[in-house]
Amino acid sequence: MQHSAPRSRRSFLQSAPLVAAGGLVACGQAEQQAAPAVQSQQHFKWKMVTTWPKDFPALGTGANNLAHSIEALSDGRLHVKVYGAGELVPASGVFDAVSGGTAEMGHGAAYYWKGKHEATQFFSAVPFGLNAAEINGWLRYGGGQSLWDELYAPFNLQAFPVGNTGVQMGGWFNREINTLADFSGLVMRMPGLGGEVLRRLEVTVKALPGGEIFQALKTGAIDATEWVGPYNDLAFGLHQAAQYYYWPGWHEPGTALECMVNKQALEALPADLQAVVAYACQAANDDMLSEFTARNSQALKTLVDEHGVQLRRFSDELLAQIGKVSAEVVAEIAGQDPFSSRVYDSFDAFRKNSIAYTRISEEAYTQARALTFG
Amino acid sequence: MQHSAPRSRRSFLQSAPLVAAGGLVACGQAEQQAAPAVQSQQHFKWKMVTTWPKDFPALGTGANNLAHSIEALSDGRLHVKVYGAGELVPASGVFDAVSGGTAEMGHGAAYYWKGKHEATQFFSAVPFGLNAAEINGWLRYGGGQSLWDELYAPFNLQAFPVGNTGVQMGGWFNREINTLADFSGLVMRMPGLGGEVLRRLEVTVKALPGGEIFQALKTGAIDATEWVGPYNDLAFGLHQAAQYYYWPGWHEPGTALECMVNKQALEALPADLQAVVAYACQAANDDMLSEFTARNSQALKTLVDEHGVQLRRFSDELLAQIGKVSAEVVAEIAGQDPFSSRVYDSFDAFRKNSIAYTRISEEAYTQARALTFG
Repeated sequence: MQHSAPRSRRSFLQSAPLVAAGGLVACGQAEQQAAPAVQSQQHFKWKMVTTWPKDFPALGTGANNLAHSIEALSDGRLHVKVYGAGELVPASGVFDAVSGGTAEMGHGAAYYWKGKHEATQFFSAVPFGLNAAEINGWLRYGGGQSLWDELYAPFNLQAFPVGNTGVQMGGWFNREINTLADFSGLVMRMPGLGGEVLRRLEVTVKALPGGEIFQALKTGAIDATEWVGPYNDLAFGLHQAAQYYYWPGWHEPGTALECMVNKQALEALPADLQAVVAYACQAANDDMLSEFTARNSQALKTLVDEHGVQLRRFSDELLAQIGKVSAEVVAEIAGQDPFSSRVYDSFDAFRKNSIAYTRISEEAYTQARALTFG
Repeated sequence: MQHSAPRSRRSFLQSAPLVAAGGLVACGQAEQQAAPAVQSQQHFKWKMVTTWPKDFPALGTGANNLAHSIEALSDGRLHVKVYGAGELVPASGVFDAVSGGTAEMGHGAAYYWKGKHEATQFFSAVPFGLNAAEINGWLRYGGGQSLWDELYAPFNLQAFPVGNTGVQMGGWFNREINTLADFSGLVMRMPGLGGEVLRRLEVTVKALPGGEIFQALKTGAIDATEWVGPYNDLAFGLHQAAQYYYWPGWHEPGTALECMVNKQALEALPADLQAVVAYACQAANDDMLSEFTARNSQALKTLVDEHGVQLRRFSDELLAQIGKVSAEVVAEIAGQDPFSSRVYDSFDAFRKNSIAYTRISEEAYTQARALTFG
């Protein structure tokens, strides 16, 4: 799209200004509110409870970065103190704590709250769902955010996307998986919808907490596990517990992280501080994916070159079979209630268009690049 | 990476907090500066000159969104008036205008300034270079931003990434391109490094300004052109001037847009407004790629379903040949001076790692998804 010469305004077809959607609507709303001078100098102290151990790589540090950015943007008028999981409330208590006002802000991922509503899972990741760029596109310019707003409103919460892991890895296995038969009887750690998919493929699924994975894999209590991607998996030492590292991760193809804010707390802020919260979240959304992109590729190199990890690809046959079962499992959520059905329809329509475009753009480009540079 | 049970902090391997790199360093610097109370109530009026016609889809509107976000975040203390190309200075004059202080802020893409330094091109796009997620990773967590800072410092400028088009399309052709021989004698509009690559493949390259493309293609003065992607190309009406729409775009695999700020103007701001500029740019970086991701996939559907556009893929043979020449053309920039060599080495090392990781993550995932959902 490069220009080759200065252009006059008249020489272009004109287009009407666009109305920004999604996250920016929140900012727009903030702009519309009055901000009396006396209020703008008021100071606020907020608590952010998180589902991560304090300073957990990229995820916990992402929460810290968000708090720092809010502090800097507000010139200290909005101070946010970050609590690791278990420090103020347990990881599983974050949603209720922010909903009820124990904390003003929470940092986690929407699929942790499927006990509140199954549809939450579409706003983080579902098997064979949207990748990172696509979920951002859906949320901000495809109607996703307004559905998320509708889902969280009864809980007194406003959610913002606040980072993404990118495509996660397929997991660590202590044996090779060549056909569907190799899944039969395998004991694997995989929570959530991915676990349900594997259960239907005759895997014995365990739902261990993160902190118990390494030991269980090392001792043979489980044969396989998924976690996140090279950066977090290396930090966990999983390469010391299993030999084969499978790709691609089909169960979490671009997990969106969320910042949830108590609605009364948000509305009590002057307009500029409401904008600070919204734009700080959007900046954090950009930052975390950048971090994962850079650190995962570096960590992969370390795992392979320094630790001799063996990369293995799931076969097309296996992926097609997993895909078929995943489609069933995810569609079942849509059947539960009319709201879930609307979310599924919006998500699925966006996925259909995305698949057609991604095939000829991002996917085709990296394939073409590999011909010469791979 | 889902949790299956509440976790205690002790149950995780601990990791030291990370030092954020790139864009956040700018914010960190802002935080360290003193912000006297008297200064923080000062109001600033800035001009933003742009390389886009006013309100140009996604690019010009992206500049508008950035100005709005700065206004909202600063509670009106930093007002930014946006000028379309030619309103205050021509598109080609943006760099000098911001460098010299005629305007405080500029919005465009770094490769427009290759006349200032050839290495600028690495900070927007080069043929067979980094995709959108990768260039963000390189800039923020791979050393790219500090090289960009070094490049722009003598010009009195601070640059921030402020959006990305994603992979661009391969272009519009009035005939099918099957082998390298079909390139010979073809007249195509393609500026910059992509144009140089094509020139070496015996294409007659024209460097027309954007506003002249449609007419030239329609009348047969050129046989082919690239522009951006489905969203912008549809707005330009290029489907009314040529039949075949080729993919993938190899010449601009994820073009980063830039916001450049006059250094004295930036340093004259109190710390919180410096943070506002930096984080508003980072939020804009997230927003524009989301917009392109959503609108390009929608526009592709419109082009194919409603306008009967014929999609065509460049052959592997052709892409491998273009890749080989692209590698030579881009490496020649590295040979020009020691700084360009450092930029190339950093960029190329990041690309190598990225290729290995993208292959088993983003690319492998969308391939796997297409088996069932494509």
